[in-house]
Amino acid sequence: DFLGALDEVKPLFGAAEEELGERIEGGIINFSTYIDDILEEGRLYINQVRKPDNSTPILSVALHGPPGSGKTALAAKMAIDSGFPFIKLVSPENMVGFSEMQKVQQLDKTFRDAYKSPLSVIVIDNIEMLVDWVPIGPRFSNTVLVALKVLLKKKPEKKGRRLLILATTTERTVLQQLDLFSKFDAEIAVPNVNTQAELANVLQHSGAFSDRDLQRAIGEIQEITGDTRIGVGVERVLKGIQTAKQDSDLPGRFARVMSNQISANRSLQA
Amino acid sequence: DFLGALDEVKPLFGAAEEELGERIEGGIINFSTYIDDILEEGRLYINQVRKPDNSTPILSVALHGPPGSGKTALAAKMAIDSGFPFIKLVSPENMVGFSEMQKVQQLDKTFRDAYKSPLSVIVIDNIEMLVDWVPIGPRFSNTVLVALKVLLKKKPEKKGRRLLILATTTERTVLQQLDLFSKFDAEIAVPNVNTQAELANVLQHSGAFSDRDLQRAIGEIQEITGDTRIGVGVERVLKGIQTAKQDSDLPGRFARVMSNQISANRSLQA
Amino acid sequence: DFLGALDEVKPLFGAAEEELGERIEGGIINFSTYIDDILEEGRLYINQVRKPDNSTPILSVALHGPPGSGKTALAAKMAIDSGFPFIKLVSPENMVGFSEMQKVQQLDKTFRDAYKSPLSVIVIDNIEMLVDWVPIGPRFSNTVLVALKVLLKKKPEKKGRRLLILATTTERTVLQQLDLFSKFDAEIAVPNVNTQAELANVLQHSGAFSDRDLQRAIGEIQEITGDTRIGVGVERVLKGIQTAKQDSDLPGRFARVMSNQISANRSLQA
Amino acid sequence: DFLGALDEVKPLFGAAEEELGERIEGGIINFSTYIDDILEEGRLYINQVRKPDNSTPILSVALHGPPGSGKTALAAKMAIDSGFPFIKLVSPENMVGFSEMQKVQQLDKTFRDAYKSPLSVIVIDNIEMLVDWVPIGPRFSNTVLVALKVLLKKKPEKKGRRLLILATTTERTVLQQLDLFSKFDAEIAVPNVNTQAELANVLQHSGAFSDRDLQRAIGEIQEITGDTRIGVGVERVLKGIQTAKQDSDLPGRFARVMSNQISANRSLQA
Amino acid sequence: DFLGALDEVKPLFGAAEEELGERIEGGIINFSTYIDDILEEGRLYINQVRKPDNSTPILSVALHGPPGSGKTALAAKMAIDSGFPFIKLVSPENMVGFSEMQKVQQLDKTFRDAYKSPLSVIVIDNIEMLVDWVPIGPRFSNTVLVALKVLLKKKPEKKGRRLLILATTTERTVLQQLDLFSKFDAEIAVPNVNTQAELANVLQHSGAFSDRDLQRAIGEIQEITGDTRIGVGVERVLKGIQTAKQDSDLPGRFARVMSNQISANRSLQA
Amino acid sequence: DFLGALDEVKPLFGAAEEELGERIEGGIINFSTYIDDILEEGRLYINQVRKPDNSTPILSVALHGPPGSGKTALAAKMAIDSGFPFIKLVSPENMVGFSEMQKVQQLDKTFRDAYKSPLSVIVIDNIEMLVDWVPIGPRFSNTVLVALKVLLKKKPEKKGRRLLILATTTERTVLQQLDLFSKFDAEIAVPNVNTQAELANVLQHSGAFSDRDLQRAIGEIQEITGDTRIGVGVERVLKGIQTAKQDSDLPGRFARVMSNQISANRSLQA
Ligand SMILES: Nc1ncnc2c1ncn2[C@@H]1O[C@H](COP(=O)(O)OP(=O)(O)OP(=O)(O)O)[C@@H](O)[C@H]1O
Ligand SMILES: Nc1ncnc2c1ncn2[C@@H]1O[C@H](COP(=O)(O)OP(=O)(O)OP(=O)(O)O)[C@@H](O)[C@H]1O
Ligand SMILES: Nc1ncnc2c1ncn2[C@@H]1O[C@H](COP(=O)(O)OP(=O)(O)OP(=O)(O)O)[C@@H](O)[C@H]1O
Ligand SMILES: Nc1ncnc2c1ncn2[C@@H]1O[C@H](COP(=O)(O)OP(=O)(O)OP(=O)(O)O)[C@@H](O)[C@H]1O
Ligand SMILES: Nc1ncnc2c1ncn2[C@@H]1O[C@H](COP(=O)(O)OP(=O)(O)OP(=O)(O)O)[C@@H](O)[C@H]1O
Ligand SMILES: Nc1ncnc2c1ncn2[C@@H]1O[C@H](COP(=O)(O)OP(=O)(O)OP(=O)(O)O)[C@@H](O)[C@H]1O
Ligand SMILES: [Mg+2]
Ligand SMILES: [Mg+2]
Ligand SMILES: [Mg+2]
Ligand SMILES: [Mg+2]
Ligand SMILES: [Mg+2]
Ligand SMILES: [Mg+2]
Repeated sequence: DFLGALDEVKPLFGAAEEELGERIEGGIINFSTYIDDILEEGRLYINQVRKPDNSTPILSVALHGPPGSGKTALAAKMAIDSGFPFIKLVSPENMVGFSEMQKVQQLDKTFRDAYKSPLSVIVIDNIEMLVDWVPIGPRFSNTVLVALKVLLKKKPEKKGRRLLILATTTERTVLQQLDLFSKFDAEIAVPNVNTQAELANVLQHSGAFSDRDLQRAIGEIQEITGDTRIGVGVERVLKGIQTAKQDSDLPGRFARVMSNQISANRSLQA
Repeated sequence: DFLGALDEVKPLFGAAEEELGERIEGGIINFSTYIDDILEEGRLYINQVRKPDNSTPILSVALHGPPGSGKTALAAKMAIDSGFPFIKLVSPENMVGFSEMQKVQQLDKTFRDAYKSPLSVIVIDNIEMLVDWVPIGPRFSNTVLVALKVLLKKKPEKKGRRLLILATTTERTVLQQLDLFSKFDAEIAVPNVNTQAELANVLQHSGAFSDRDLQRAIGEIQEITGDTRIGVGVERVLKGIQTAKQDSDLPGRFARVMSNQISANRSLQA
Repeated sequence: DFLGALDEVKPLFGAAEEELGERIEGGIINFSTYIDDILEEGRLYINQVRKPDNSTPILSVALHGPPGSGKTALAAKMAIDSGFPFIKLVSPENMVGFSEMQKVQQLDKTFRDAYKSPLSVIVIDNIEMLVDWVPIGPRFSNTVLVALKVLLKKKPEKKGRRLLILATTTERTVLQQLDLFSKFDAEIAVPNVNTQAELANVLQHSGAFSDRDLQRAIGEIQEITGDTRIGVGVERVLKGIQTAKQDSDLPGRFARVMSNQISANRSLQA
Repeated sequence: DFLGALDEVKPLFGAAEEELGERIEGGIINFSTYIDDILEEGRLYINQVRKPDNSTPILSVALHGPPGSGKTALAAKMAIDSGFPFIKLVSPENMVGFSEMQKVQQLDKTFRDAYKSPLSVIVIDNIEMLVDWVPIGPRFSNTVLVALKVLLKKKPEKKGRRLLILATTTERTVLQQLDLFSKFDAEIAVPNVNTQAELANVLQHSGAFSDRDLQRAIGEIQEITGDTRIGVGVERVLKGIQTAKQDSDLPGRFARVMSNQISANRSLQA
Repeated sequence: DFLGALDEVKPLFGAAEEELGERIEGGIINFSTYIDDILEEGRLYINQVRKPDNSTPILSVALHGPPGSGKTALAAKMAIDSGFPFIKLVSPENMVGFSEMQKVQQLDKTFRDAYKSPLSVIVIDNIEMLVDWVPIGPRFSNTVLVALKVLLKKKPEKKGRRLLILATTTERTVLQQLDLFSKFDAEIAVPNVNTQAELANVLQHSGAFSDRDLQRAIGEIQEITGDTRIGVGVERVLKGIQTAKQDSDLPGRFARVMSNQISANRSLQA
Repeated sequence: DFLGALDEVKPLFGAAEEELGERIEGGIINFSTYIDDILEEGRLYINQVRKPDNSTPILSVALHGPPGSGKTALAAKMAIDSGFPFIKLVSPENMVGFSEMQKVQQLDKTFRDAYKSPLSVIVIDNIEMLVDWVPIGPRFSNTVLVALKVLLKKKPEKKGRRLLILATTTERTVLQQLDLFSKFDAEIAVPNVNTQAELANVLQHSGAFSDRDLQRAIGEIQEITGDTRIGVGVERVLKGIQTAKQDSDLPGRFARVMSNQISANRSLQA
């Protein structure tokens, strides 16, 4: 039978019970007011779906932004804070080695399961990787893509079932080119750590920097890059702090690591 | 046998008995005189097929327009209002996970079934998705495409059988490039909500806006976008109203949501 | 065995006994002197093949022209008027769902059957669709293409067998690019309804227009399009007449329908 | 076993015993001194291979020229006139429906058979079609191409075996792009009927034209095309004579048919 | 079962027990201060992973540089010097003839094995060859690529397990285009032997050159290339020394061999 | 089992025991000092590998040059003159009809066999054909390419085993684009017969030309081509001598044949 093989499909890399909770273990730092705005907008969509008049049985939101900017963490936070009875993460991590058809089946199963609950959230992580997208060629899985297009628009067959879909991606333009982006009802942009003030917030929160080290680190970054703009994802900032902690010269090493990152990002944009 | 597998082909995502009626549950708002003109033109084609002299045994009409502009709803309305004994929706939603050959078989079966009735309407929804079309590459299913080309031109073998085909698409240009568009006998353009007056009609009909809120919302949209033109599908307008209803500042939130949409649409066109 | 599967190959869409006669049921209207010239040229080729001295055992003619201009009807007329004992239509309609190899086998069988008769005509309809040609890509079936190239040049093995091949296509340039066109011995261009006088001939023949309505319709077309040229296939003219008949304002509706068509054709050419 | 399936491979379109003799049934007309030169050059290569000192165990010659210029007829003539004990035609006609591997096996078998004889000629007809070459894409069979490259260079394993390969093609440039042309030891260009004098030779030889008709036909061609150059393959000239014979106005019809051909050829070159 | 076939997958070219130690058998020459800096940076990352607070459970570093510059040797040195209990080399050498899925399974197995140890290093050698990347086309294995992307980001499921990944590549730009480079936490550039002083260090260390021969060799290189820059990988320098040793004129031959190499590298960059 | 099928893989075109000796049957003519230099350089590499200190366990040399310039003959000469106990030719001739995997297995087997001997030479002939490279597309076998890349760099697992690889190719640029060329340790350019003096050497050596005929032939070539440069591979020169010997006018025919060749080569380069 067409769905028969499904139960035997096991993720190749470890177990499937990835918990959304793990994604926000370190807590969310409000290093900028944008973080609050994003979470606020998330609450709005959750309430729209929650509304008992059933006017919005399905709603899909795309969180897009640069690598390591916190997209997955923020989507996980929204999902968990919703308090909806069904919450599920769909991630390429759990589908490595799947055929295209197995991915479609996994997606189908997740959506069916969601529609068994009155209120559900599905987080689709790295949606461009789910369709195996690679910039060279470009290549991607048409089968998975078409399935996603349909699932994002397909209303629940049973009345009273309501679903919020949160998808993350670093590749907004790609989704547009794949004609997938237009299937979303809303989009939320997740920004990098962009200003010196925002960077200072993260450093302070880490507890690793004295005030003087913090000033020196930021000052040296400006000197090396010749610019006050940062433009680095929060993940790299946090990892950079850890690397710097191994060095006797904490602020100096941090400044060098960050500056390299800033330059690399810039040359990618040029 | 060549057709043997057909009966076992079941749609992967839920049941196949999608009803056309569901597509017009919310009713059609006549927010512009174009809506009336479109339905009037639909009646003309229905009558041409209905004519007992058999001069037009098969007629195909392509409804094209931007996403969420109401193409499917209008095609569903025409089909239901025809009163023809056989009415059927062919939709990619019910064919996810089908192979190309299974799609062709499903199409073939639908057309055969239609020709068992003296008067029939087939609505082919999102015809560009039915051929798995993706703008990158571009890619599409040649097998399904060729089958559609033939089916749109193939006269019923039995005398006295007559068929109207209504197809919807967001991708008129693509159908032209695929040499599929020229197989249609007629085309109907379905427009966005384009003017402030049209938008006001939709808002008024929703019952969610007081007259003052309505004025404020439209005024703020003009302020933010710097333009009196709207250019958004009716679906987004209706969903935007629902989102705004979650906010304490209804007209303000609506204006922001709409303005984002208007800008996004514009940047796509640029 | 290599040919074993052939007998089991059944066309997916209905029976294979498509009759050439059906294609000229409505009769041929001599709306222009070109129609006579074409039929005359057809007679010439038929006689060249008929000639008992066997100097031309195989002759192939490509009828090319815009969609709905009458290519198939004219080829059918030539074939039937030849009085040759073996007449056969090869059409993509009867090969939907065939694999490339099944198509080649079907072609092979038709040519073998033809060579069992002393004098034969094979009409190959929409030859560009037979090779699954699609402008995007572009794509096509190389296997079928190569088989056609060989069949168009391959002389009968048995002496005294003679064959005329009439092929139709909307895609002369494509056939040239596929290096298929050069395999034909001759070509015949089938034109659109191009002048107001030709259009008047068709309208008069339909019996649906009074003289005044005819003048008004043509006048309005000129007004709307700003041009005296028509450039529409006879098929669309005939279908347009049927649509207009559903409207209370026959000439007005006809003028609008035709003008749309004229503009669409023009924009395609630009 | 790897070669096991070979014996069961039967050509799809009729028997394989195509005779080279059939290709020169109508005789070779020496319409130009080039024809003599070509046959003379052929004799030279035949003698080089025939030479008992075994200095040239394998020699390959490519005959290239426009469609219908007589390449196959001239290669057949050379092969037959050589008097070599083994003469074989390899033609795409006898390989329609073959897989790539079956073609390679057929080629292999032919070359093995040839090496069983002390002196052999293999004529490979339409070598670009043998590799399934199509200008769009472009596409071709890499497997067959590589096999041909090897076979053209592979010396007989057994001493005293000698082989001449004559290949025909309309696509010299293509063979160069496929890096197949450089594998040939020599090339011979086969020309069209190019001048009025050459055309007159062919017409005279046909016996269908009186001197006056001949003058009139050539004069009218010059008038219609505005040019004294002809540039048409001898095959088309001969077929054109047959078509014209069906018309009451022999020279007039011939002039029109030829002029069309001349224009078509010219527009292809432009 | 999905992983069942894995144990039977044996590398086609020899045994899999390639030892990292073999890669640094000849010892590392500190021909430039860069070599020290690189090894120092390696120690930093090793300590970051070693840190008991588990703040960096997974860290990935890309070593990139020209062919034969010492990437694999330096990665091997870092891995061995770490003293981590689990050290493993993943190399295309051991996967020739593997299917894409077998490669993914091999990768998966290595990472699982690594996560059985508290502290692990995996060296992925020539990562661009692991994805079968070829510049023409370009082509690569999407399946392996997606698996690598996931593995570089996937945190260990079990707490307290920590992993350092060292990958080598000559194709930094390619990895960027494949969107694989952004998955790495850090990058280290490995340089060529670039200056005359660096070259002299290598020559001296080899013990093959007297001081005068060394001067002469370097002088002649400058004369031939017209430049003081070298720009050759240390591997080619070492092999060049061996070649030169076969010649009676050691410095002369060495100068010629190096100069050829220098010119070849330059023309590649131009 | 993975290697099981190997023994059954038999070359399609004749036996595999192609002897390297056959490639130099006619002897090497030292028509230029380059020939000596090439053989001398070959001896150097052979000695480097032969050296008992095991400093160069594997060495690969690419011989590249125009078609028929003598690459295979020179590689065969080097291999045979080395006196190494294991000498093997790997040639596309013996792999026609092999699948990609079968080619990889054959390569693997040859290298394993080589490593059973202390000193080995493998000649890989026409390496660009081994990877099925075709300029159109371009196309090639990625599987074979990756296997070659690995084999060229993979050191013997057993100590004391040493291997020299000599590869020939007409396509140096292609190998660079495939990133295969950089895997070679050294390259040797094999030139055409380029000057009149070099051509005279070959003619004299053939014994077919009197001094006067030789002068006349070279003089006429210069007259026809308007140039003193020759630029033709030695193979074509030798074959041209044989062709000319069939003609009563030996020098005249030779001059014409050579001039055609010279022009053809030039137009290829333009
Ligand atoms: N605002 C934040 N405050 C503190 N930590 C954060 C914040 N956002 C993200 N992080 C942390 O940074 C790391 C990376 O975040 P996350 O994975 O959500 O980013 P991402 O944008 O999804 O990255 P990717 O592009 O790789 O998918 C995680 O460890 C996460 O917990
Ligand atoms: N004129 C209208 N008045 C009121 N509601 C409408 C109107 N047209 C469409 N709708 C509603 O808007 C929503 C979207 O309409 P519909 O699905 O027909 O649009 P569409 O153009 O087919 O969209 P898509 O491009 O996604 O296929 C539906 O809920 C439908 O009922
Ligand atoms: N000269 C004519 N007079 C009257 N009717 C005609 C004439 N030519 C064609 N028709 C009618 O027009 C319709 C379309 O003609 P036909 O199918 O031959 O056109 P076509 O050029 O083959 O179209 P297509 O491009 O779709 O293959 C048919 O119903 C046919 O009977
Ligand atoms: N010189 C000639 N004199 C008379 N008839 C000729 C001559 N050359 C060719 N023909 C005849 O013309 C016809 C076509 O010739 P042939 O098939 O050899 O041409 P071709 O160049 O091989 O064509 P194609 O490009 O289609 O392969 C044949 O009937 C052949 O007998
Ligand atoms: N700094 C060094 N000092 C001495 N020998 C070195 C040094 N670096 C590398 N080598 C030696 O040079 C040879 C090539 O080095 P290695 O394989 O590490 O280079 P690579 O950059 O990985 O090359 P590839 O680009 O081919 O992968 C090895 O034999 C290695 O031992
Ligand atoms: N220097 C030489 N002197 C005499 N004969 C030679 C010389 N070089 C090559 N030949 C002869 O020329 C012929 C072609 O040489 P060979 O096959 O080695 O050339 P190649 O460069 O390998 O050609 P290809 O590009 O086709 O592989 C052979 O018969 C060979 O014996
Ligand atoms: Mg994420
Ligand atoms: Mg719709
Ligand atoms: Mg037709
Ligand atoms: Mg021919
Ligand atoms: Mg390396
Ligand atoms: Mg060679």
